[in-house]
Amino acid sequence: MILHDFLSSGNGYKVRLLLTQLGIPFERIEYDITTGETRTPEYLETVNANGRIPVLESEEGVLLPESNAILFYLAEGTRFMPENRLGRARALQWMFFEQYTHEPNIAVARAWLHVFDVAMTEKRRSALETRQKLGYEALGVMEDHLKANDFFAAGRYSIADISLYAYTHVADEGGFDLAGFPSVRAWLERVSSQPGYIPITQS
Amino acid sequence: MILHDFLSSGNGYKVRLLLTQLGIPFERIEYDITTGETRTPEYLETVNANGRIPVLESEEGVLLPESNAILFYLAEGTRFMPENRLGRARALQWMFFEQYTHEPNIAVARAWLHVFDVAMTEKRRSALETRQKLGYEALGVMEDHLKANDFFAAGRYSIADISLYAYTHVADEGGFDLAGFPSVRAWLERVSSQPGYIPITQS
Repeated sequence: MILHDFLSSGNGYKVRLLLTQLGIPFERIEYDITTGETRTPEYLETVNANGRIPVLESEEGVLLPESNAILFYLAEGTRFMPENRLGRARALQWMFFEQYTHEPNIAVARAWLHVFDVAMTEKRRSALETRQKLGYEALGVMEDHLKANDFFAAGRYSIADISLYAYTHVADEGGFDLAGFPSVRAWLERVSSQPGYIPITQS
Repeated sequence: MILHDFLSSGNGYKVRLLLTQLGIPFERIEYDITTGETRTPEYLETVNANGRIPVLESEEGVLLPESNAILFYLAEGTRFMPENRLGRARALQWMFFEQYTHEPNIAVARAWLHVFDVAMTEKRRSALETRQKLGYEALGVMEDHLKANDFFAAGRYSIADISLYAYTHVADEGGFDLAGFPSVRAWLERVSSQPGYIPITQS
C-alpha cells in the first residue's frame, strides 16, 4: 500500500494510525500542502481530482481518497469495525459529524495557526473566532456523549474514535483549551493507550 | 419510522427519497430550522445534541442523526448499497466529499439565498462569493467523474447518487448555473428517472 500523505495532517494520521494498528505495511509519499503540491495538474490528473490528501493506493493501483472512507475500507472485517448494522451506522454518524461539524472548525483553526502560519489580518481573526466558537460547540457534543460512554460507537474502540481523535488531540494547536472537557480528555487517554498506537509525528 | 425533518432541507430529502424507494412507510415531524426549532433545550436533550435534522427514529426509539449515516443504515442489504468492499468505500468517498466539499458550499449558498433569506451585507456577499467559487469547484470534480461514469459508485444508482443529488438538483437556488456541466445535468436526469423517485417538495 502507498499512502499519499502530509505528515502534519490529522486526516492523513487517521490512516497511518489504523494501518499501523492493523499491521499493514505501507509507504508514504509526502506532499507539502502549504506549497500547493496537491493542486498541481499532475496530482489532480493522476492521484486525486479533488486535490487533497490522504489518498490510499493499493497494489493494484486503485486510488481511494477521503480519510474516513479509507478508514471504513480498511476496517471492514476487522475489530475496528462495529459488528452490527446500528453500530456501523453510529460509527458513520460520528465520522460524518467529524467531517462536517468538527474538522472544518478545529482542524482549520489549527491549520491557520500551526500549519500554514497565515497572516492574522482582522478578517482572518474574525473568521478564526467563528471557527473556535463552533469548534467548542463540537467539543461540547463530544463531551456530552463521552460522559456516558467510553467510546463513540458500539461500546469499544473503533474507526469512529480514530476519526475524532486525529484533530481533537492536537486541538491546542488551534487555540483550543480542553480544560472544560474532562470526559474528552479521559477518552484521549483511552485512545492513546490502545495497542499499536503511534503519534501524529511518526512518519 | 419517524423522520425528524425540515421540508426544504436536502439532507432531509435524501432520507425521504431512499425511504420511499425502499417502500418503508414513515411519519415526518417538521421543524422550522429558520426559527431555531432544532436548537431548543428540548430538541437538544431528546432528539439530537448536535441540533440538526434529519434524525431517523426507529420503532424501538433509536435516534440516528447525520443524513449520510442514515442512508448507509437504511441501504445495508438492499440494491442501493454497492455489493463489494471497494464499492462501499467508493460510495462513502463521495458521501464524505458531499459533506465536506459540496454541501458547505452549494447547500449553504442556497440556504442563504433561498431558505433563510438573509440580509445581503457586504460581508455576507463576500462570503457567498467564496462559497460559490468553491461550489463550482465541487461541481467540476463531479463533472470530471461523470464524463466517464453514469453513477458515482459501483456503476449503478446507489446511496452516493442520492447523497449528491439532493443539493445538486437545486443548486440554481444557490445561484449556480449548471450550463457548463453537461455530464452533471445528464446524471440529474438519470437520478430523477429512477423508480420511486419523489421531488424535494413532497412531504
